[in-house]
Amino acid sequence: MYNFQSDYLEGCAPLILEELIKANTKQSVGYGEDEYCAKAASLIKDTIDNPNADVHFVPGGTPCNILAVSSALKPYEAVIAAESGHIAVHETGAIEATGHKVITTEGVEGKINPLEVIRVVEEHTDEHMVKPRMVFISNPSEYGTIYSLEELKLLRKICDKYGLYLYMDGARLGSALASKDNDVSFKDLGELCDIFYIGGTKNGALLGEAIVINNDDLKENFRFMIKQRGQMLAKGRILGITFKTLFKNNLYIELAKHANKTADALRYVFDAYNVKQYVETSTNQVFVILDNKVVERLKKNYLFTPWGKYDENKTICRFVTSWCTKEEAILEFAQNLKEALR
Amino acid sequence: MYNFQSDYLEGCAPLILEELIKANTKQSVGYGEDEYCAKAASLIKDTIDNPNADVHFVPGGTPCNILAVSSALKPYEAVIAAESGHIAVHETGAIEATGHKVITTEGVEGKINPLEVIRVVEEHTDEHMVKPRMVFISNPSEYGTIYSLEELKLLRKICDKYGLYLYMDGARLGSALASKDNDVSFKDLGELCDIFYIGGTKNGALLGEAIVINNDDLKENFRFMIKQRGQMLAKGRILGITFKTLFKNNLYIELAKHANKTADALRYVFDAYNVKQYVETSTNQVFVILDNKVVERLKKNYLFTPWGKYDENKTICRFVTSWCTKEEAILEFAQNLKEALR
Amino acid sequence: MYNFQSDYLEGCAPLILEELIKANTKQSVGYGEDEYCAKAASLIKDTIDNPNADVHFVPGGTPCNILAVSSALKPYEAVIAAESGHIAVHETGAIEATGHKVITTEGVEGKINPLEVIRVVEEHTDEHMVKPRMVFISNPSEYGTIYSLEELKLLRKICDKYGLYLYMDGARLGSALASKDNDVSFKDLGELCDIFYIGGTKNGALLGEAIVINNDDLKENFRFMIKQRGQMLAKGRILGITFKTLFKNNLYIELAKHANKTADALRYVFDAYNVKQYVETSTNQVFVILDNKVVERLKKNYLFTPWGKYDENKTICRFVTSWCTKEEAILEFAQNLKEALR
Amino acid sequence: MYNFQSDYLEGCAPLILEELIKANTKQSVGYGEDEYCAKAASLIKDTIDNPNADVHFVPGGTPCNILAVSSALKPYEAVIAAESGHIAVHETGAIEATGHKVITTEGVEGKINPLEVIRVVEEHTDEHMVKPRMVFISNPSEYGTIYSLEELKLLRKICDKYGLYLYMDGARLGSALASKDNDVSFKDLGELCDIFYIGGTKNGALLGEAIVINNDDLKENFRFMIKQRGQMLAKGRILGITFKTLFKNNLYIELAKHANKTADALRYVFDAYNVKQYVETSTNQVFVILDNKVVERLKKNYLFTPWGKYDENKTICRFVTSWCTKEEAILEFAQNLKEALR
Repeated sequence: MYNFQSDYLEGCAPLILEELIKANTKQSVGYGEDEYCAKAASLIKDTIDNPNADVHFVPGGTPCNILAVSSALKPYEAVIAAESGHIAVHETGAIEATGHKVITTEGVEGKINPLEVIRVVEEHTDEHMVKPRMVFISNPSEYGTIYSLEELKLLRKICDKYGLYLYMDGARLGSALASKDNDVSFKDLGELCDIFYIGGTKNGALLGEAIVINNDDLKENFRFMIKQRGQMLAKGRILGITFKTLFKNNLYIELAKHANKTADALRYVFDAYNVKQYVETSTNQVFVILDNKVVERLKKNYLFTPWGKYDENKTICRFVTSWCTKEEAILEFAQNLKEALR
Repeated sequence: MYNFQSDYLEGCAPLILEELIKANTKQSVGYGEDEYCAKAASLIKDTIDNPNADVHFVPGGTPCNILAVSSALKPYEAVIAAESGHIAVHETGAIEATGHKVITTEGVEGKINPLEVIRVVEEHTDEHMVKPRMVFISNPSEYGTIYSLEELKLLRKICDKYGLYLYMDGARLGSALASKDNDVSFKDLGELCDIFYIGGTKNGALLGEAIVINNDDLKENFRFMIKQRGQMLAKGRILGITFKTLFKNNLYIELAKHANKTADALRYVFDAYNVKQYVETSTNQVFVILDNKVVERLKKNYLFTPWGKYDENKTICRFVTSWCTKEEAILEFAQNLKEALR
Repeated sequence: MYNFQSDYLEGCAPLILEELIKANTKQSVGYGEDEYCAKAASLIKDTIDNPNADVHFVPGGTPCNILAVSSALKPYEAVIAAESGHIAVHETGAIEATGHKVITTEGVEGKINPLEVIRVVEEHTDEHMVKPRMVFISNPSEYGTIYSLEELKLLRKICDKYGLYLYMDGARLGSALASKDNDVSFKDLGELCDIFYIGGTKNGALLGEAIVINNDDLKENFRFMIKQRGQMLAKGRILGITFKTLFKNNLYIELAKHANKTADALRYVFDAYNVKQYVETSTNQVFVILDNKVVERLKKNYLFTPWGKYDENKTICRFVTSWCTKEEAILEFAQNLKEALR
Repeated sequence: MYNFQSDYLEGCAPLILEELIKANTKQSVGYGEDEYCAKAASLIKDTIDNPNADVHFVPGGTPCNILAVSSALKPYEAVIAAESGHIAVHETGAIEATGHKVITTEGVEGKINPLEVIRVVEEHTDEHMVKPRMVFISNPSEYGTIYSLEELKLLRKICDKYGLYLYMDGARLGSALASKDNDVSFKDLGELCDIFYIGGTKNGALLGEAIVINNDDLKENFRFMIKQRGQMLAKGRILGITFKTLFKNNLYIELAKHANKTADALRYVFDAYNVKQYVETSTNQVFVILDNKVVERLKKNYLFTPWGKYDENKTICRFVTSWCTKEEAILEFAQNLKEALR
């Protein structure tokens, strides 16, 4: 049974394990104040070309979202997201549990619609309503689509005009930046986002994400927030070692390129058999429309995610590749798909 | 510079790394629903002899406390702790951040005073005050002391009488159970606590703690809470692998025994030089009273924790050993101490 | 300048003032445990024909919603509302501030769509999403429409089937029950709702709403919640006196009838001049579509609420009557409208 | 049965009722934006001689504390209080329910000890602990004692030095300022507190307290907080009318003077019969030590509050007078006490 359900079903990049082993017999101070975390932060600041950024490491993606939102917003302030945004759907109300409303808006293939952001801000006029204060985007989005540089610049302009923070959830950021259609650089993120995170878990780490804070107003006492929300690992070094490894010699992007490449192969396979994509993507998530019968047949040998009903006879299905998806696996899947389509 | 500040300054037990490597090339489902977590949970349930217990794995200790308290208590209910309790002092208000009051009481060498529990409950009489609903204890306590079986049974009785949950923070539980003075078994915990956690981070894991829920009333939908609080690792298997390894062949206790043994050696060294313990312990934390001058001299070669002022000339200092403290390190420290005391 | 903006712009029913004066020189115990509150609760229980109900009095409507939701739901549970629901729009995120998500659904003229409730429940399948647990309805809705008995029974059935609580926000409940189109009785509410509130502020009280809890599971320690959320008035008797007066001799419904009657007159006036209602209502809120020019002209002598843009040239406007709107005021408005429409 | 349990057992000053009646037939805008609230705020700003202050009216005292703390503090910040402080004991964890820790310190007859404030701040050194950010005092304290001008100035100095806000709970502020031992003026409060509230409920109002914000940093969007916490009355004018009346012609202080005068009479009665005060006060709360037998005898004709055990045979009891306590009631009590002491 091969599993295309997600990119977190795998182990980690071997180099990370090697570095963990190397460091294993050494003592180092706790709670993320070790030399590895310092080195990793330094590499990330170089990569985004923002020496003034603050970088913090936490175990997962929901923690990043909890921390970014709840440390930036006052109790009556809210975050705007596309209705498919991870914080709006798949985090069990983690944002609301910190007291903040998530205002959902109709998105475009998973991405936020800038006009909707403006509409929301303009509709929230007084103290009987929450005050929109942050725009949440995920890049790539939950539908695998990516933001162009122009789109990000437009959102930045809107945020500046309306006094909003721009926050990017980068759970699969590598895959976005490594996409053949991408024109956004790490450096752009160092400039355009107030705060964003670089996802490790879904791109070759065992665990760990790096929160990057560009906006000075959001930096103060962030470690208090990390500790309070239970996101400060005592052996913080494992996150430092992980990100130090990922950001040396471009490993982070290399791993993502592999994931995208195998996703490209998968897209090619689907195209070859006239299986239509539900959303056209160039990252490691592939959304296709499959006959229910085909779904049933494929299920015998494969795990993948039924994303929703397309119509009575068809289902939208998600297939995800990873940093270590083997090309043989794609070839074998092609064979299976062919038979299932018969 | 040798570091006695804590037991989380080290790497992890080599066997855990080996198992991580072994599993690294395999796919497994995410979010703690993998076979490793299942196996680990099964081993723990065997160990505590409670087949009906629920076992969940999370990255750290503060998460356990957040989850145990906030999932068990209604908004107006409160938890009683000793004033030195971890949740009362060293978690940046993590419990209050979930909306619950921590009622602090005068403890006895870090342990809760059962009479104080009764006093608190009896003083909270109506809806103008919070309703005490849980007793928080740490075993060993933050002062390295341990609870006897008799003490635990008494607390259980009080909890039953007053309708309180008994929750044990077991960040260093191994060290308590492996202590030569201990008469409490894992099985006792499976009987006496409503909920407790078994700490991995401070006993040979890279990260991870196991929450054990004995009381049926506290089990429902616990995974919703884990997710909402940002404590559900996508690659949950690393926690499963960790605990599967720790609970096979008694490794968890063996690691703790080593920590205690080297702490015993340290205690012997201090005794030999007439350095008085501030609190008499038999676990891996050693609290001694040192002349300020001696502290200054030792600081040249050692890191350890000044815990508080004893008097104008003396400081209470904490030294902690771990699963991998070398006996040579103790011998070398003995030499250094001798010189510092001169 | 006459004000049709809302029904809370007026003073209170004279009888309430008289009763306040009568009681003013007497001592009575505090925090809602006085004889007046007891009497008021008793009258309400008689009215809804549910002797087992619990009745609590609080100062306002948002407090009712905060208390109903946060006392009934576990941290990961959510409440479903129409997108125009008061808790979703006009309470500054009060519900989210207690940690709970409000799931918004497309409504029908302000009322919840039962099919949407079912869809939401069925889409929330696992611990990565919140757990829907309560249905919030307002009767009349924020668009002045009312629920029929059949509709309420259907919602009750759905709630029973899916394990949801049914909660009714009755800020203007009097106006709903006094509507000529209404077939719901107080007794029906005592049977069909798990919890609801009877609004006083908008129906002749100076302040105050009565929370009625029918479902035993929601009763325990509710006073702790009231106190914790800062909603327990020390001189609770003023709420008791208010509701004792409102529920004696049917005053509550009589006041609402007057409001509806003057709204009917207003509707008649609009009809007479061919001004179209945006939503057809039979309660004390009238929503009409007015030419922007007419709006400007009317504004010289009247305050009312522009509710939203209808099209480029037209605005949806809300006019609200109250327990003390004078018929002369309607006649005079008719004159003004006629001139403004010219 | 005469009731000395508290000052909120009475109705309101007749002048307030008269003003409510006068305004009853007039329309006015809602939510505290009416002319009465504006006038009341203006009178208060004159009284404290701070034209830049912001004044808001809310229904009760716990709301004031909830709003002051939760609007001023970041999630990881905490408030320091005496262990007898109202927020620490008698508000059902209302502060913690907003996510903030209340750090309790040993007080002196109900007042905070400045040295304890310093100790707490100096002990909270890093991100593993909350960050103390506000000092909570009540004047008079929960034991009826008052702060001298010198004491307030010292607290102000400490707050400035350590970056703390000074917040005063003035539930019975009138009684403090009207005390014969008082040397603090309203003007001093306009200078020395960052934020404080002037209690109406316990000094002749039916309900209502006035929050005064002197510190500009705490003013922004305060109305959002009031609304979110469910503390914005729709008919806000009743609070405006109340405070407009209380702050015209010095009524607020006159009412408090009466309460203090009758408390003085009560103190004189106790002295005359050699009943010792537990704490010496000059406000409207009297704490005395009574033989248990005497308590039992007095209970036949009086309600008052047993505050705690003094020793096996004696009880600390609280008697409170109010703006409308009659002197005859004191005389009659003297007679009863005499008999009870026999």
